[in-house]
Amino acid sequence: MHTPRAALIVVGSEVLSAKVHDENGPYATERLRDLGVRLASIVTIPDELDLVAETVARERARVDWLFTSGGVGPTHDDVTVPAVAKALGRPIRRLPALAAALREGHRRWLGVDDVPEAVLKMADVPEGARLAGDPSYPVIVAENVVMLPGVPRFFRMQFDAFCASLGAPPFRLASAYLALREDEFAALLDRVAREHPDVEIGSYPRFDGADHSVRVTFEAKDVGRVTIARAEFLSRLPPGAIVRLEGP
Amino acid sequence: MHTPRAALIVVGSEVLSAKVHDENGPYATERLRDLGVRLASIVTIPDELDLVAETVARERARVDWLFTSGGVGPTHDDVTVPAVAKALGRPIRRLPALAAALREGHRRWLGVDDVPEAVLKMADVPEGARLAGDPSYPVIVAENVVMLPGVPRFFRMQFDAFCASLGAPPFRLASAYLALREDEFAALLDRVAREHPDVEIGSYPRFDGADHSVRVTFEAKDVGRVTIARAEFLSRLPPGAIVRLEGP
Repeated sequence: MHTPRAALIVVGSEVLSAKVHDENGPYATERLRDLGVRLASIVTIPDELDLVAETVARERARVDWLFTSGGVGPTHDDVTVPAVAKALGRPIRRLPALAAALREGHRRWLGVDDVPEAVLKMADVPEGARLAGDPSYPVIVAENVVMLPGVPRFFRMQFDAFCASLGAPPFRLASAYLALREDEFAALLDRVAREHPDVEIGSYPRFDGADHSVRVTFEAKDVGRVTIARAEFLSRLPPGAIVRLEGP
Repeated sequence: MHTPRAALIVVGSEVLSAKVHDENGPYATERLRDLGVRLASIVTIPDELDLVAETVARERARVDWLFTSGGVGPTHDDVTVPAVAKALGRPIRRLPALAAALREGHRRWLGVDDVPEAVLKMADVPEGARLAGDPSYPVIVAENVVMLPGVPRFFRMQFDAFCASLGAPPFRLASAYLALREDEFAALLDRVAREHPDVEIGSYPRFDGADHSVRVTFEAKDVGRVTIARAEFLSRLPPGAIVRLEGP
């Protein structure tokens, strides 16, 4: 059972310079989890062609799908498409189907037939790129790189359109909320983690007066493995340690 | 005038698997901007020792200060310190001053003298590491890598303590809010950007019925350069294009 892997590059000088908060990373994170897809990394970098190209080449090698967010408009700071072309070692070519979609959109939304060259330039994509999703607002895909717009509303629209075909079995998550300090069960949890390498185990302390002081999570696609790992951990805790359980 | 550069690695399986939202990236972004420090990247990766080590080695080479968030507790999923040691090619050693601070904290907050080994293990750091900030809750620094806790309250406390010494001249930001589509000024803005390579120029369209359709930003440490670049751009816009201006 292959778990699809994805990564996200936020091409975002505006995020790094605190001009806007990134909404696309959190959105993609939630949606990919719901889809049973593993998110392997989120990398936020400035709109610099060579750096974006280097990051695309590195990240796409580790995943099934690499998403990029931003840098696909008509202005000088829109470097994502040439950067992806460079990473893939492909020239830039105008894609007639995309030019036609841009022309049609311009006509429909602005009521004009005369499309400026700055708009048509958005149809210049890495050679061999294909269009996916809604044909009237298509997603540009080159090999395993999915280039999405940075404006959150459009990012979500295109992300959802592309991901409709990506479903995989869901992750199953079980949690134990404890009234212990981490150091009081670290050795035990370490042993359970070593004995269950197929279950992802996390330990998240909090110090804010909640009803518990640590949440321990057990996660895998096989719900049986999740419940067994948690049971082995819980069965060795001292009396009064468990505040409540959550999940299967 | 050197502008300090920083990067942030969020060691965060819990973020990538949608269990918690990262608060530390946005916090560090705002604070570094206020301090006049350039944030070069934010990389969120899972708690995997080799991947964290590789990422630390790569990112720290490009910046003055590399911050890490998370993975410094006593449980099996806390891999940041060994990963940093691996990236720096240094062995792990117990740092007596840090062990003493942990003992003192344990005594003060829990009222017990008997400190478990799982707690003292948190004093095992890359050889040559130094302590910075508040001696009762010290920040661990190895070469240019600053290892911060993932719990947001403690991240902020240690980040602020470390950054108190990092001040640099502030960035100066000027904005123009326009009633134009990006394609209507893309060629002009491209030319202004080429003529002012020392000014960072960004263009951020929105489609949500705000009073403007694009915000164009001009940013540098020299306020004179910022205002000149913006004036050259504004002076060539058509009548009625400018909704309002912001900044110097």
